[in-house]
Amino acid sequence: MPNVPDIPQSGAQRIVISIDAMGGDRGPTAVIAGIEQSAAKNPDIHFIVHGDEAVLNRLVGRRKALAGRCDIRHAPRVVTMHEKPSQVMRHGEGTSMWSAIESVRTGEATVAVSCGNTGALMALSMIRLRKLEGVNRPAIACLWPSRNPGGFNVMLDVGADVKADAEDLRQYALMGASYARNGLRLARPRVGLLNVGTEEHKGRAELKLAGEMIAQAAEAGAYDYVGFVEGGDLPSDRVDVVVTDGFTGNIALKTGEGTAKLIGDFLKEAFAATPLSRIAALLALTSLRRLQKRIDPRRVNGGVFLGLNGTVVKSHGAADATGISAAVKLAFRLAKSGFQERLAARVASAGPARQDAPASGERNGKPE
Amino acid sequence: MPNVPDIPQSGAQRIVISIDAMGGDRGPTAVIAGIEQSAAKNPDIHFIVHGDEAVLNRLVGRRKALAGRCDIRHAPRVVTMHEKPSQVMRHGEGTSMWSAIESVRTGEATVAVSCGNTGALMALSMIRLRKLEGVNRPAIACLWPSRNPGGFNVMLDVGADVKADAEDLRQYALMGASYARNGLRLARPRVGLLNVGTEEHKGRAELKLAGEMIAQAAEAGAYDYVGFVEGGDLPSDRVDVVVTDGFTGNIALKTGEGTAKLIGDFLKEAFAATPLSRIAALLALTSLRRLQKRIDPRRVNGGVFLGLNGTVVKSHGAADATGISAAVKLAFRLAKSGFQERLAARVASAGPARQDAPASGERNGKPE
Repeated sequence: MPNVPDIPQSGAQRIVISIDAMGGDRGPTAVIAGIEQSAAKNPDIHFIVHGDEAVLNRLVGRRKALAGRCDIRHAPRVVTMHEKPSQVMRHGEGTSMWSAIESVRTGEATVAVSCGNTGALMALSMIRLRKLEGVNRPAIACLWPSRNPGGFNVMLDVGADVKADAEDLRQYALMGASYARNGLRLARPRVGLLNVGTEEHKGRAELKLAGEMIAQAAEAGAYDYVGFVEGGDLPSDRVDVVVTDGFTGNIALKTGEGTAKLIGDFLKEAFAATPLSRIAALLALTSLRRLQKRIDPRRVNGGVFLGLNGTVVKSHGAADATGISAAVKLAFRLAKSGFQERLAARVASAGPARQDAPASGERNGKPE
Repeated sequence: MPNVPDIPQSGAQRIVISIDAMGGDRGPTAVIAGIEQSAAKNPDIHFIVHGDEAVLNRLVGRRKALAGRCDIRHAPRVVTMHEKPSQVMRHGEGTSMWSAIESVRTGEATVAVSCGNTGALMALSMIRLRKLEGVNRPAIACLWPSRNPGGFNVMLDVGADVKADAEDLRQYALMGASYARNGLRLARPRVGLLNVGTEEHKGRAELKLAGEMIAQAAEAGAYDYVGFVEGGDLPSDRVDVVVTDGFTGNIALKTGEGTAKLIGDFLKEAFAATPLSRIAALLALTSLRRLQKRIDPRRVNGGVFLGLNGTVVKSHGAADATGISAAVKLAFRLAKSGFQERLAARVASAGPARQDAPASGERNGKPE
């Protein structure tokens, strides 16, 4: 096994992030406001910003913290939220999304950030960056508020592909662990496989095989495999990385978001119900803000596309400046850690799955 | 199509509910306390209670509201939470769970309620009650807190089976709509199919076919089909019944519960953080209790097994008296509405799926 030290190093270095400024629901104003927040906090960060040159020159010119930190690239067209990925693949050249990915492809920027149409962004990333050697299906990884000390768990895939076989799930484990190490700074992440029960005989048959393959790759992937986890474990502190197919992961992600939103709305109604409760809300303002910060979806803004020759961060379409800045922060951290090279090395070192895989327990993932 | 009026009728009638008193985490004390709550509220309800006769005689004897309302049946054995369904199927006779189902099978009771091991309860229900004519896979339906006026949506399957093909999903739509009509009193429920996007081209191919078949059965099932829904729609007011396979449904259910619990814990921590926030919590007590009541899992206690010759309500294993009482209330409401016969009639009237099903839109579900 090659020696792959993938704990992030510290030390200043100039990091270039490629920004699709046009695709989000709030337009380029929010994007430029967001990258200014990041630029003000971090002197090592530089941007290549893609979109309508006249608009961007005007917006960037107004922001002091961006002076000398932005390279603007004209892209006359925008991918809309309703365009089909297949159309964008054929006719996407000239859009800000295409152009943003291009800066990563040529090596000018390390990571691209876009608030645009997820399906189109994945499709363009696939055809322009191509799949990483040894990866069958790229995945989208998201962060999930949790009881862990760092405050977040990783789940993947949350929607790159509706299918995943056992070998895909094994690759997700390797990629997710590498992401947790570089994005969340966990030296040895704990990986779990999402199922409908934690007992070995439960769930779909293909998950049993996947569990064995993930256990076998644990040494090469430098993670610990904790076995099956359930939906209730997504926010738990017994796991750091939750592996699942993109159909299940997307539904879990949106169910969790929808439930959090419902409770938030109910909480607001409860505090607005009586004069006494309105006074209580004022008194509890600081505490409630702290709660809001812990579960604020803007703080976990940024799905990361894994398994391509280059890293792409997908920000929420509705992200405001704070959300964009969170996505840029994530992109910066990944770029600085040399994530892309480390992930590629991990996938390569784990090699292809052995078809003669013995049952789990007989060999505990120790490769020769 | 036969005329099946399945809006519940009102009027007093004696309803007998069969109770497995032994299988829950809190033992028979909580179960007997729970059924007493129900008995005190409702003079029409009677119970057949299954379990250790000596223990039950003592517990029931202490509860005034149960005097003359309980028929105790001795069952010497208990199904534990860790027994495999296959073992219980072979050796389950003599357990309180088996005995509780038996009262429904013989027609003495209309609905059975158990807090026991879900897998074992489904396995025993399957072999003793048998599948309803025309149903391939029974399903477990749960209630989900929602923005709808009634406060709940129905989701099924949440774990009876890890697989469901298009025809199974069509049957779930028919059964779920009938459950919503009789359990939630919605005259014409809106049914949605869970997917990773609402556009017709998204998601798994088999879901497209299932969507067409569900649309076709809408008239016979007396529901409106709203098309694909996403995880975020589970608590929404654009749908009443969410149809999915048992793998996805179970993970969505547990993800939602886990997220609600996480936020609840964070909220408690936020209110305990400072002296001011502790005062605020006192002032807001009534409002917070109202919130708690809206999202209290005990109030939504009761997964209903659908598609068998008899109705079984599965209560949470950890249910306390309030939770048991909620499950009994649901069982009573279903029994009183004649749910079992209405559901059977709906499944029969919709008939088997047509193999020459035209694409949706060509015919909007109007059967001949």
